[in-house]
Amino acid sequence: MQKLIEIFGNERVVLGTAIPKVYLETPLLAQKGIAQALVFPKTTQEVQDLALYAKEQQYHLIPRGAGTGVTGATFPVKGEILIDFSQMNQITAFDEATRTLFVEPGVTLEEIQTFVEAKGYLYPPDPGSNKATIGGTVATNAGGMRAVKYGVTRNYVRQMVVVLASGEKMTVGSLTEKNSSGYDLKDLFIGSEGTLGMIIEIALRLVVPPKITQSLLVGFDHLSDVSKTVNALLSSAVNPTALEFFEEEGIAYSQQLLGLSFPLKQSKNYLLLTVDGNQRADVEERLEQALALADKNQRVEYRHLSDEVEAQVWKLRGAIVSGIEAVTKQEPLDIVVPIDKITETIEKIKQMGQTYDLATITFGHAGDGNIHVCILKNAMTDDRWKKQLALFLSELYHYVALQKGLPSAEHGIGLLKKSYFLKEIDPTVLTYLRQIKAVFDPENRLNPTKMM
Amino acid sequence: MQKLIEIFGNERVVLGTAIPKVYLETPLLAQKGIAQALVFPKTTQEVQDLALYAKEQQYHLIPRGAGTGVTGATFPVKGEILIDFSQMNQITAFDEATRTLFVEPGVTLEEIQTFVEAKGYLYPPDPGSNKATIGGTVATNAGGMRAVKYGVTRNYVRQMVVVLASGEKMTVGSLTEKNSSGYDLKDLFIGSEGTLGMIIEIALRLVVPPKITQSLLVGFDHLSDVSKTVNALLSSAVNPTALEFFEEEGIAYSQQLLGLSFPLKQSKNYLLLTVDGNQRADVEERLEQALALADKNQRVEYRHLSDEVEAQVWKLRGAIVSGIEAVTKQEPLDIVVPIDKITETIEKIKQMGQTYDLATITFGHAGDGNIHVCILKNAMTDDRWKKQLALFLSELYHYVALQKGLPSAEHGIGLLKKSYFLKEIDPTVLTYLRQIKAVFDPENRLNPTKMM
Ligand SMILES: Cc1cc2nc3c(=O)[nH]c(=O)nc-3n(C[C@H](O)[C@H](O)[C@H](O)COP(=O)(O)OP(=O)(O)OC[C@H]3O[C@@H](n4cnc5c(N)ncnc54)[C@H](O)[C@@H]3O)c2cc1C
Ligand SMILES: Cc1cc2nc3c(=O)[nH]c(=O)nc-3n(C[C@H](O)[C@H](O)[C@H](O)COP(=O)(O)OP(=O)(O)OC[C@H]3O[C@@H](n4cnc5c(N)ncnc54)[C@H](O)[C@@H]3O)c2cc1C
Repeated sequence: MQKLIEIFGNERVVLGTAIPKVYLETPLLAQKGIAQALVFPKTTQEVQDLALYAKEQQYHLIPRGAGTGVTGATFPVKGEILIDFSQMNQITAFDEATRTLFVEPGVTLEEIQTFVEAKGYLYPPDPGSNKATIGGTVATNAGGMRAVKYGVTRNYVRQMVVVLASGEKMTVGSLTEKNSSGYDLKDLFIGSEGTLGMIIEIALRLVVPPKITQSLLVGFDHLSDVSKTVNALLSSAVNPTALEFFEEEGIAYSQQLLGLSFPLKQSKNYLLLTVDGNQRADVEERLEQALALADKNQRVEYRHLSDEVEAQVWKLRGAIVSGIEAVTKQEPLDIVVPIDKITETIEKIKQMGQTYDLATITFGHAGDGNIHVCILKNAMTDDRWKKQLALFLSELYHYVALQKGLPSAEHGIGLLKKSYFLKEIDPTVLTYLRQIKAVFDPENRLNPTKMM
Repeated sequence: MQKLIEIFGNERVVLGTAIPKVYLETPLLAQKGIAQALVFPKTTQEVQDLALYAKEQQYHLIPRGAGTGVTGATFPVKGEILIDFSQMNQITAFDEATRTLFVEPGVTLEEIQTFVEAKGYLYPPDPGSNKATIGGTVATNAGGMRAVKYGVTRNYVRQMVVVLASGEKMTVGSLTEKNSSGYDLKDLFIGSEGTLGMIIEIALRLVVPPKITQSLLVGFDHLSDVSKTVNALLSSAVNPTALEFFEEEGIAYSQQLLGLSFPLKQSKNYLLLTVDGNQRADVEERLEQALALADKNQRVEYRHLSDEVEAQVWKLRGAIVSGIEAVTKQEPLDIVVPIDKITETIEKIKQMGQTYDLATITFGHAGDGNIHVCILKNAMTDDRWKKQLALFLSELYHYVALQKGLPSAEHGIGLLKKSYFLKEIDPTVLTYLRQIKAVFDPENRLNPTKMM
């Protein structure tokens, strides 16, 4: 390990037992992680030197951003070296002429948002945790609330520099708007969860933000009416920026946590819808259209949200998970189904909850068919929870596969979903995923044991 | 070759010398192609059987759509078997609930457009030739006029079924809106120019079309003012659907061909801009904003286009290449540079034209930095043309690379750009492109000698 100190200096290497606990545990796993070392690179050269050293000494490497991921993807299981990118945290350039922002991987989404807002631009991806780093969100292809209109992280990465397990450095993607020059390597690295290479520089595409944003909250009794409304909205000219669904029960948890009031009271299911644009008349007309579609589908109540109430409702929506976690241990899922399969999938989840004696809270990005499920442990014993949860997940992921859905829309597979992912995937596809891995990381040095 | 007749029946196999000339020539190459056979599959099974047969007998295969490609990518150079997909031409399903269209590879863009328009939807990619097949446009990641707002073919493919050189069949991508479940294989196959697999089924994402579309034509004397206007437009709230640039001289060729009149007369350079939306006031306001930006940048003249004149101007814009081809042989390029490099790149092209005694016409998708260049042969002798053209291209592609641009934005590399592509590419990247090829086609059976 002397070599690590040579590369990073004393202050940027932590060895074995000195590694802080936070790097060695995840709320979702009982076991404790095992890591050789923790390093904090500041330069590309250091990352390349580390890769060469790991190759020579047969060490394994785990790239890590802010550690906010919820799939155990940065959890060290076999004495890996953890690479914490938080000190590669510079916004290196902003090219206004091409609306391109150049960042190092450890810059947080919050820092990016603050920077680009001050320049009058928008970086659309907004996954729930803005402490997440850009490197981590690219490596998981993170989504967020605005994906229904603006797309996901993949849609905003122009170009990246990656360091491979071999120590080689290469640029994938391009600074141009279009590209039909060779295979698309960039999109392979996006969503690769630290298993193909270390992302050390990212050129992001920014957009011009809308001038006006308005939200509408609608309550429904029946889930099927929410789905019908969502589908009608997506086939209309409303073009929503966000289309979030949640259950009354979910919002109760965040109300309890935040002590904020929720403007509607009478319904079981809510749809929170945002429309943006540059002309007030246009935005208002589209909101009216949205409401008319909700009316047609048996909405119980609605509220046009003033700026203040809007902020409050979004806060409540954002705090569902933390609200639940304040009360009980939970397992968070981010399944995705074709958008016409939302109702039956949620109904299946509720019915399975009864079968397995597990409470579930569902919410999510309805416009993307992306359903978040929190499975609540509550008073269940550890042993029973483990058993029931495994049965529940196994049946659910199989059901999702039958619906032509996927285990992850935006969190990735990591460690926690790996067995389910492998169970449902087409074996031919799996063969090729593994061969792609072998092309870039033939000795399986990068984030081994994750994804597949 | 008896086996081919077993697979396809007598009517769907053409052997050796009986292969029609159109399959064996491309206007861009003097030599004549050499193919073993030409087959017309109708089913996936036939394509799989063909792959197995080719493997067994060591034949090479070239997938082919409508043959409209302009890079020589379907040109047979070593006795390949040509697979013409024009008889796999069914729209197999339309799923309105998820706005997904399922098509076979031989369906033409024209057929798709007609079908989806009748259903009230839009498939945005619109490359110049609507006789092109969906298979060919996916394999080249085709763009078109609307890319500046709507993106390219890549953005509209949800899922594909591909047949590999091994005869294996696999589904890549998904029917869901989001996906963070494993590496993104789908985007590898998009733009792979028939070198990684045969695309035999495609699920396309449709969008809701805008209700109103309006165009504005603006004339400028100086190219740099066009560029400044383009850049200002892209940083504004105008959000253009199309942003096309052309020279006065280019439009003269299409006027000559079509006998249509062009509404403006006084300028050297034109910008044709379209804005779409659902509210007239909104569309008009954005057009006014666009005009104000053109005013600030020394526009010479402008015209708001009525529907009739609009159609005429777009026809003229679309016929620049055919107008030139009616007069002389030409070499068509589709280089792309970061959008702030448009002026200097076109100036470089003009200056190089003088150096090498070659007339050039430039036009293109200014909003994407995608410059089409027609290099005109005119009265030059064949030998001199060949020599001068090679010198010109070699210098131009090198210059483009220095600008961080690429040889192809939307046509692909094929045969014609291969040597230039290989000259400028980072050798590390090339190594990995070749390893990806080897994963899916280890014996190099699919479209060998193309791209790299
Ligand atoms: C409260 C909460 C709400 C959330 N809501 C959403 C949501 O709405 N939508 C959504 O998409 N996600 C959501 N997430 C998940 C979030 O997107 C991820 O936590 C985030 O993408 C990970 O960023 P990170 O910097 O913390 O990465 P980490 O958790 O540290 O790492 C995540 C993965 O990226 C890899 N990685 C990290 N950096 C690099 C690098 N430089 N090079 C290569 N690989 C790297 C790691 O190896 C790991 O596989 C939520 C998370 C929380 C805690
Ligand atoms: C007048 C004109 C204007 C044009 N303007 C534009 C423009 O504005 N924007 C733009 O992007 N392009 C433009 N193009 C190019 C056009 O996009 C291509 O011609 C088109 O993408 C090719 O479609 P095709 O069916 O003719 O394919 P082909 O030319 O037959 O094949 C093209 C490539 O795709 C591969 N391929 C075809 N089918 C399959 C399949 N089923 N599976 C795997 N590989 C396959 C072939 O091997 C080849 O590499 C223009 C072409 C013309 C003639």
